[in-house]
Amino acid sequence: MRILLADDLAFTDAFEAALRAREPDVELYRWPSLPDDGHFDVLLAWCLPDGLRRLPDSLAFVFCFGAGADQLLSDPRIPSHVPIARLVDENQAAQIADYAAHVGFARLLDQVTVKEDQARALWSEADGPRRTRDQLRVAVLGLGHIGARVASELARLGFSVQGWSRSHKSVPGVETFAGEDGLVTAVEAADVLINLLPLTAETEDILSQKLFARLSSGAYVANLGRGGHLDEAALLGALESGRVGAAWLDAFRQEPLAPDHRFWSHPRITITPHLAGIPTASGAANSLADCIDAFRRGFPLPNLVRPGRI
Amino acid sequence: MRILLADDLAFTDAFEAALRAREPDVELYRWPSLPDDGHFDVLLAWCLPDGLRRLPDSLAFVFCFGAGADQLLSDPRIPSHVPIARLVDENQAAQIADYAAHVGFARLLDQVTVKEDQARALWSEADGPRRTRDQLRVAVLGLGHIGARVASELARLGFSVQGWSRSHKSVPGVETFAGEDGLVTAVEAADVLINLLPLTAETEDILSQKLFARLSSGAYVANLGRGGHLDEAALLGALESGRVGAAWLDAFRQEPLAPDHRFWSHPRITITPHLAGIPTASGAANSLADCIDAFRRGFPLPNLVRPGRI
Repeated sequence: MRILLADDLAFTDAFEAALRAREPDVELYRWPSLPDDGHFDVLLAWCLPDGLRRLPDSLAFVFCFGAGADQLLSDPRIPSHVPIARLVDENQAAQIADYAAHVGFARLLDQVTVKEDQARALWSEADGPRRTRDQLRVAVLGLGHIGARVASELARLGFSVQGWSRSHKSVPGVETFAGEDGLVTAVEAADVLINLLPLTAETEDILSQKLFARLSSGAYVANLGRGGHLDEAALLGALESGRVGAAWLDAFRQEPLAPDHRFWSHPRITITPHLAGIPTASGAANSLADCIDAFRRGFPLPNLVRPGRI
Repeated sequence: MRILLADDLAFTDAFEAALRAREPDVELYRWPSLPDDGHFDVLLAWCLPDGLRRLPDSLAFVFCFGAGADQLLSDPRIPSHVPIARLVDENQAAQIADYAAHVGFARLLDQVTVKEDQARALWSEADGPRRTRDQLRVAVLGLGHIGARVASELARLGFSVQGWSRSHKSVPGVETFAGEDGLVTAVEAADVLINLLPLTAETEDILSQKLFARLSSGAYVANLGRGGHLDEAALLGALESGRVGAAWLDAFRQEPLAPDHRFWSHPRITITPHLAGIPTASGAANSLADCIDAFRRGFPLPNLVRPGRI
């Protein structure tokens, strides 16, 4: 079985060794290297390389090297009969949970105000105790593999967590809501909003003025989904009005974020360059090997984002 | 029983109501108000007010309105036969644990580098997965009521925690060390250092060049103890060399911190104005009521920092 690796993060000895430990007979090619006849069975990619104009008929499935697959789902180069599965890595989800927890603790400490006071050398004594975790409402949008993991972990840490997804899901320790009406309830008076939705036509621009208006004053917002989820003007307006106290952005409509983008210099925005959750070599290799095993046995691939047509 | 309240944070209806609920017959005075004859039985204070030149012979004990009592222990106005007890408030300890957790999560995300990259509009993609909590070594100095609570909570959150105290203590989930030799082992290769020691002759300047040299490169240091614990020049040097990646300072040799102090403008120092843990009205009232109850029954006061002489 030939696998074309088309993501820098998979170009590591650790990844290849972990994959070969599970699948000893795979032939691995690192893009732009290709087999002489141009045929391969599996394409591993997060985004299809520009130079890869046509995929071979031999292609059995695409393995998305990341949690969100919108950039592959919308790529016309991948024929609709080709299944797309995505990477699932517990360690990656744990990193994202840590990022979300960081934003929660930052809100408790009111880190942005602390730094703004410091910039003015202002010694502003507390006028009372800070809230504890159970008094902080955290809303998590998206309850897929990662969203559910993040929501339940935040609940385990002691935060008061509401979760929302398009269709109803149950998550331990989390009050869950679904559907259009449920969205407003889920984010109502939230002190922290964590977005982990997949990007679809329904979720585009979901981080909107209308949504921000439901949050608690001074809420911290973390967009760990996609740039397309965020109405950028709405965020700037909500920061201006104080409705949103600070934002943590990990994904952008254009990546890398343009050097002259307003977000870079905004004092209440933290930019992280799409690093909220990076797949580990072993987690990614095992996830791919699970797909290869299933494919060989004729079972449906695990973690399908598009089943394809047989 | 007459109680002189000499701390702004105790001048609240909530505190007085909670105290009266436990001790209905106390007479409360808010400094600078005093009983006409100048006699009172209990003094509640964090620092003795400058104007309180002489304490009355009627004084039975001093109740320290905070976790650290060095500023009272060293005050010559309090006769050595007068016992000093301190406030113990689980909620206050929980706030301090949240502060410490914030620093731990900030280290995982490498928040300081993130913000420095952002200031240069630098899109610096991750070259691999971040560490998870169990891979982050957190050293906690001081295992008293607050230190033990913070260390065990950080362990519960999943961090790898070492604790140190002068005499040996056991803390659930925490590897503990004691004594001079144990200090070096406890902080060896630590990624995060949290100071929660009491200030004594032995612990003054304990956050020294020698100690910083044992830490992991780029470690985050949080001084939640006293300003006197920190060798300021050593910290600035360790930040300069990169041995310390960032510092979170909540206590200072002089408070408020002087407006021209170098710390205010240091890009890798976060200044918080002694707010890591603020007593709650109910926690503080219950802690004081516990002392009053013990005194009335002739038992030793709980949470004594100096027993006094009978």
